[in-house]
Amino acid sequence: MAPVTVHIALGSNLGDRTAHLETALQRLAQVPGIELVRRSAWRESALQGDGPPQGAFCNGVAELRTTLPPLALLGVLKELERQAGRVLPAPRNHPRPLDLDLVFYGDFTIDSRELVVPHPRWHERAFVVEPLQELGVEIAARPRRATPVVIGPPAELAAQCSQWLAGGCVLGLVPTMGSLHPGHRSLMEIARAECDRVVATIFVNPLQFGPGEDFAAYPRSLERDVELCRSAGVDAVFAPSVAQMYDPEFASHVAVGAAADGMEGALRPGHFAGVATVVARLFAISRPHRAYFGEKDAQQLAVIRRLQRDLGFPLQIVGCPIVREGDGLAMSSRNVYLGPADRAAASILVRSLRSAAHAFQRGETDRDRLVARARTVLATEPRAAVDYVELRREGDLALLPPGKVAGGRMLIAARFRDGVRPVRLLDNMSLHEVVDA
Amino acid sequence: MAPVTVHIALGSNLGDRTAHLETALQRLAQVPGIELVRRSAWRESALQGDGPPQGAFCNGVAELRTTLPPLALLGVLKELERQAGRVLPAPRNHPRPLDLDLVFYGDFTIDSRELVVPHPRWHERAFVVEPLQELGVEIAARPRRATPVVIGPPAELAAQCSQWLAGGCVLGLVPTMGSLHPGHRSLMEIARAECDRVVATIFVNPLQFGPGEDFAAYPRSLERDVELCRSAGVDAVFAPSVAQMYDPEFASHVAVGAAADGMEGALRPGHFAGVATVVARLFAISRPHRAYFGEKDAQQLAVIRRLQRDLGFPLQIVGCPIVREGDGLAMSSRNVYLGPADRAAASILVRSLRSAAHAFQRGETDRDRLVARARTVLATEPRAAVDYVELRREGDLALLPPGKVAGGRMLIAARFRDGVRPVRLLDNMSLHEVVDA
Repeated sequence: MAPVTVHIALGSNLGDRTAHLETALQRLAQVPGIELVRRSAWRESALQGDGPPQGAFCNGVAELRTTLPPLALLGVLKELERQAGRVLPAPRNHPRPLDLDLVFYGDFTIDSRELVVPHPRWHERAFVVEPLQELGVEIAARPRRATPVVIGPPAELAAQCSQWLAGGCVLGLVPTMGSLHPGHRSLMEIARAECDRVVATIFVNPLQFGPGEDFAAYPRSLERDVELCRSAGVDAVFAPSVAQMYDPEFASHVAVGAAADGMEGALRPGHFAGVATVVARLFAISRPHRAYFGEKDAQQLAVIRRLQRDLGFPLQIVGCPIVREGDGLAMSSRNVYLGPADRAAASILVRSLRSAAHAFQRGETDRDRLVARARTVLATEPRAAVDYVELRREGDLALLPPGKVAGGRMLIAARFRDGVRPVRLLDNMSLHEVVDA
Repeated sequence: MAPVTVHIALGSNLGDRTAHLETALQRLAQVPGIELVRRSAWRESALQGDGPPQGAFCNGVAELRTTLPPLALLGVLKELERQAGRVLPAPRNHPRPLDLDLVFYGDFTIDSRELVVPHPRWHERAFVVEPLQELGVEIAARPRRATPVVIGPPAELAAQCSQWLAGGCVLGLVPTMGSLHPGHRSLMEIARAECDRVVATIFVNPLQFGPGEDFAAYPRSLERDVELCRSAGVDAVFAPSVAQMYDPEFASHVAVGAAADGMEGALRPGHFAGVATVVARLFAISRPHRAYFGEKDAQQLAVIRRLQRDLGFPLQIVGCPIVREGDGLAMSSRNVYLGPADRAAASILVRSLRSAAHAFQRGETDRDRLVARARTVLATEPRAAVDYVELRREGDLALLPPGKVAGGRMLIAARFRDGVRPVRLLDNMSLHEVVDA
């Protein structure tokens, strides 16, 4: 390959700082395929960000010409850090004898697990920008990373994810219908902690709404949602229009069998085929390593687990705990439509679940008496019109036979009618969940 | 990281051969993170494989200790090849001043687009094995690559494909039901030419056989099939059992709408849902960049194109031309069941298609007269019981209105009954295909 002009940032705040920097440059110039062109003056700067108390940094930028590929150059830089006495992997923001960052590698854009160039925060750092300016490097047109990237066309999402996957990134997917609340945020934060790149999707999927359901009225707030994604550390938001998501000749659907029968499946014919179809499509397009769903929609989670196993998507489905309001109401985008009296009444769902779990933990193990216990509590709230109360097997939510149970998950759906519009609320709980009496 | 012991093979057959080898080792020893431990004697060997006439090689092996990651070391080796005057990328098997191969990188196994270690053919090369033995390197337990790898469990296929994808390989998938013939071989060869790694699948999929169809009797010949895959350069054969492919609770299916209606879809209810389901599963598990299907099963190809678009799998469906016997009969695994008289009669399908294409190219553009033309030819063969003859739009095989056509694809299915068992044969042809009169 033709030689590429490269800029690296050097820093040291431990030991003989300028000796570390200069030794590194001398050794770099020895490497076949690397030519040292020039360097900036060394300058002083304090640590940016948090970290233990430590001395000031000595910093600068060097310009190289190299025929080494980016990862080969990165390997050499890491080796020089090691030779300077740095222990790798280094604890974040601790003092270090030598810190070498690849700032620019020609005009290349690389976004992989091991390397991001241009460096994602180069433009925020005076100790990089000023030496670049001193060297007369043209920086105005250099890419600055905006996160999250907001993507509409599925082909663009596929391309972005392919790039990350090709770069060895572990990819997390958080599918949502938008109108994000702290429950969604918790999914994103769990994904952020477990993955190198996180994609949130925001799409109100018409396939999963029946005639007469609230597709048109489902709350939408893209701008606020993107801001929440940004603050939760999401890397890309996939927010396609319906036309982008489904072309005019779209004709496929995915059905998952028994997991979609009963409960929501019985009340909302076609709902889970719509869910399975859109989720299969999201998995196919983005190919995540892990996908995050809330346990609040427990039957949906069981449907998606079945889908993942049956179609064989090589990814992990991560079910995340329900996030609740102060009174225990499970967070849901539809809660905003509750009138004040219904809002106050709505905590009856969680109270009835806790009552059943409490009874189980006190020794009641009969399936039907546990269901009756929850129903008795629900009946104390005349505003709640109960659709179902069921005790199902944990995990796949298969039917449990009558008689004794060793555990299980209780699921409730109820309607409230006094708000802006009728609202159906869902909630569920493991009988083993620790509850106050 | 801790230093790793690495063995590299060196070779030169252009210019001052030993000077090239020794300069390379001197420069290597200069690189931060590389220590030259020892080298074998240089020895003479002739070119292995084809190539232009050229002088003998001077070869040897060197042992290094390095803290550089594999790709960094590879980048340095390539740079040294360049410095010796080698033009990269180098034409295959031409004389070269310096050839450096990474043979072993500790115990690492790497199988990526850029690098395969251990070197895939190290054990076949005396000019590598003998110097390693001279150095006393333990080689008996070193991995030797067997291709193709034969894989049963879907999770193993997913893991193998993930490794290749993570290594930047372009992955091709050739789904088959086994009983491979030259038509399948042509798919594999096209895939081999276009991809870094090729996976062939061999699975007689029960979901796509109806009651009373020939699932049990469908021909199976795994050993011969694997040998054909090997000779076609396939890297992995996925040959799961039915139990490995579908777990006992498997309950999903994928349907694709109108593409599956009519023709085979009308005669074989549920067939295309079975095809779409298994193909979706294969795509999900293996995540290829390209998937190869024969045009002989033209409606299946249209169904799979619809599936790919609707579920959004980010891959290219490649339709490959029909491969025919000497008399024009389209190759099919079911041809083996034809009795001798039926075998002789079976070329009536292609002859009727050619007759229609010939008529179109001579000016006949009426849809129904073109179909009648093919039917007239078919009627001359009493052994063929015709299921359908249809002229459809090219590509998606949508219905064409009566009247003039500007082109299209004619599809035929017919039954033959005098062999070991009844056989249905399919064939199809574009009206634009160049045919002899």
